[in-house]
Amino acid sequence: MTACWVDTTARPGFGVHHLPYGVLAWPGEPPRPVVRIGDLALPLQRLPGHEALFAGPTLDAFLVAGPTVWEQVRRDLTELFTDPAQQTRFGALLRPVAEAAPVLAFTVADYVDFYSSEHHATNVGRIFRPDGDALTPNWKHLPIGYHGRAGTVVVSGTDVRRPCGQRKAPQEQTPTYGPSRRLDVEVEVGFVVGMPSTLGTPVPAAALTDHVFGVVLVNDWSARDIQAWEYVPLGPFLGKSFATSAAAWITPLAALAAARVAPPAQDPPVLPYLQDPDPWALDLRLELSLQRGGTDVVVSRPPFAGMYWTPGQQLAHLTVNGAALRTGDLYASGTVSGSEPDQRGSFLELSWGGTAPLELDGIGEVSFLQDGDTLTIRGTAPGPDATTIELGDVSGTILPAAPR
Amino acid sequence: MTACWVDTTARPGFGVHHLPYGVLAWPGEPPRPVVRIGDLALPLQRLPGHEALFAGPTLDAFLVAGPTVWEQVRRDLTELFTDPAQQTRFGALLRPVAEAAPVLAFTVADYVDFYSSEHHATNVGRIFRPDGDALTPNWKHLPIGYHGRAGTVVVSGTDVRRPCGQRKAPQEQTPTYGPSRRLDVEVEVGFVVGMPSTLGTPVPAAALTDHVFGVVLVNDWSARDIQAWEYVPLGPFLGKSFATSAAAWITPLAALAAARVAPPAQDPPVLPYLQDPDPWALDLRLELSLQRGGTDVVVSRPPFAGMYWTPGQQLAHLTVNGAALRTGDLYASGTVSGSEPDQRGSFLELSWGGTAPLELDGIGEVSFLQDGDTLTIRGTAPGPDATTIELGDVSGTILPAAPR
Repeated sequence: MTACWVDTTARPGFGVHHLPYGVLAWPGEPPRPVVRIGDLALPLQRLPGHEALFAGPTLDAFLVAGPTVWEQVRRDLTELFTDPAQQTRFGALLRPVAEAAPVLAFTVADYVDFYSSEHHATNVGRIFRPDGDALTPNWKHLPIGYHGRAGTVVVSGTDVRRPCGQRKAPQEQTPTYGPSRRLDVEVEVGFVVGMPSTLGTPVPAAALTDHVFGVVLVNDWSARDIQAWEYVPLGPFLGKSFATSAAAWITPLAALAAARVAPPAQDPPVLPYLQDPDPWALDLRLELSLQRGGTDVVVSRPPFAGMYWTPGQQLAHLTVNGAALRTGDLYASGTVSGSEPDQRGSFLELSWGGTAPLELDGIGEVSFLQDGDTLTIRGTAPGPDATTIELGDVSGTILPAAPR
Repeated sequence: MTACWVDTTARPGFGVHHLPYGVLAWPGEPPRPVVRIGDLALPLQRLPGHEALFAGPTLDAFLVAGPTVWEQVRRDLTELFTDPAQQTRFGALLRPVAEAAPVLAFTVADYVDFYSSEHHATNVGRIFRPDGDALTPNWKHLPIGYHGRAGTVVVSGTDVRRPCGQRKAPQEQTPTYGPSRRLDVEVEVGFVVGMPSTLGTPVPAAALTDHVFGVVLVNDWSARDIQAWEYVPLGPFLGKSFATSAAAWITPLAALAAARVAPPAQDPPVLPYLQDPDPWALDLRLELSLQRGGTDVVVSRPPFAGMYWTPGQQLAHLTVNGAALRTGDLYASGTVSGSEPDQRGSFLELSWGGTAPLELDGIGEVSFLQDGDTLTIRGTAPGPDATTIELGDVSGTILPAAPR
């Protein structure tokens, strides 16, 4: 491990082996692209040779610059932070992350949400469609996905207002209007596209690193009662579109080389366009916590490594029909749930549709979210040389529904 | 009717009562926002007092400027074209539309597709789910919709490559990969949002003209075999995301005052948030034509006036959960189909899922689209003083699937 002149012992998951990117706004200043090291941030417009790339208020220009530039900037930053001769000049430019507000780091183009955890899909199928097969017949043939609302992706720390809408429980005769009574989280991992592709030309799974820049944790907030009533036949709409929270820090895929693991076996075999000669999953260990009334409790620990469909397969499927990628496209994994009850990534599953509330220490019974709750998703991954990478967390507090 | 110094007798639907906006690129020149009159276009960066508003390559700055500016520009243009004193100066600036290539006139933010024709939804329900109820239980309680892919909205005239993907006919054991065998059109009407709204604050139906600038014809190309296999449980994805074509000309809502008609009665009554104190539908008369092998045939004439859900109700529903509108949001009506067989807006319906091919004069039997087919949607609306408005058409030609 190369020595770094910034002291990151207090936040070892943000050492020089990580270097995630974000956008911060210090009080009274415009948003600035930054790289994070420890609990400090370097404004990237001060990075020699790359000033123009980071002159705007987002990472968009950097994302569209493509993999060669991504590598060069990462190499330059690694050299900068490990060359003691740079400490005098750049040490003075580092500023505490905690003194700034995070800003959504890129312009979200299209937002796609997959459904790639077999455990999650099985649980949801059993809860929503108890009389049918848990998995639909297509589930093991293709990574099911749909488009969400790009315009309501918000950065971690943004409060989330409880949505109103139509809800109809199975025993009710007609729908009613009102605040969602079954507000939920979905613990997800999002992939941020940098390099666009050409309309009409599919992108193979193996080309993932040519197009995808990095990873962000995502909370795909969901109003289960609104969703359950609206989603047949055209899928989720208002049950999801009120807010999707993304972490402030994008971890470059280049930092996650040591986190690559073999994906689960797929049976039945998938069609050739979904086959990857060198497939990999990511060993991201996630953690969902609930803060209610001053108590903060870890609710579950979903393991990302076990997802049935890989990020490369999701990309290949997303573009197999010729759909173009744009800079800023965000595609998320779908809820990450493991095989064990304490690995489930949504309260829908954790409370089995509200029929078996969780008992949480110091909080009591929990089925769905209450006003004032703060939900946080954290994650770690193995880094190089026995280090750990701490993913940027994604957090949000529930505000009461708007008065009407 | 005020006299206009431009001779529009050859294209009366584009008279001074209409004045749609678009973006054109003349050979060797950058794209320029224009207003159309007859078969001519006025580059708007030459419009006195509004040069900066139209200096960019899109209408985005004009759209975000809001209703007061929209009205002012329309008033200024009406005066310009009806004041004979302006002919010398501005007549010289008019250029033939036919000499330029259309460019997508605005940056599409989020694309939403509704499903608001009762006839269409009933037909599709009978074809896709012959053993169930034609309409799902939610259909008359809310305007069903979902998000489509904003990044693959293309301007009229763009060729559309036949998509490949997974298809599985009911009698097949497993899915196969290949070009769609059931490529189709959907005749739709799109609404272009200009003024954004605030995250967390719903927009009532009656506020439509505060936010929506105008109307474009839309062809929501659909691969029925891909769609049928993928759409349960999360809705359409790759069956739609390869391309959506939008007309080059945005007709301002201000030009469609005379086209407002009472919408159909709704039974059961809708929830209060979907009630509009002064509801209106638009009497747009649409026409779908197929050009195959040198023959051009009108296939159907879908009537937009009969849509069950109004544009105002769609807007109120889309935002009831607090989802924000952004400039450039495009929401489309869903396939427009009338009660009669020759008023159906998709080949899925026209050929009843391929089981009853259409017999077209000079073409023969038609179920779905062939490579080389050109599909065009046209539309007219009543204008003021017994005039007619011709909506900008939307056209596209099918290219063979990409070699693999």
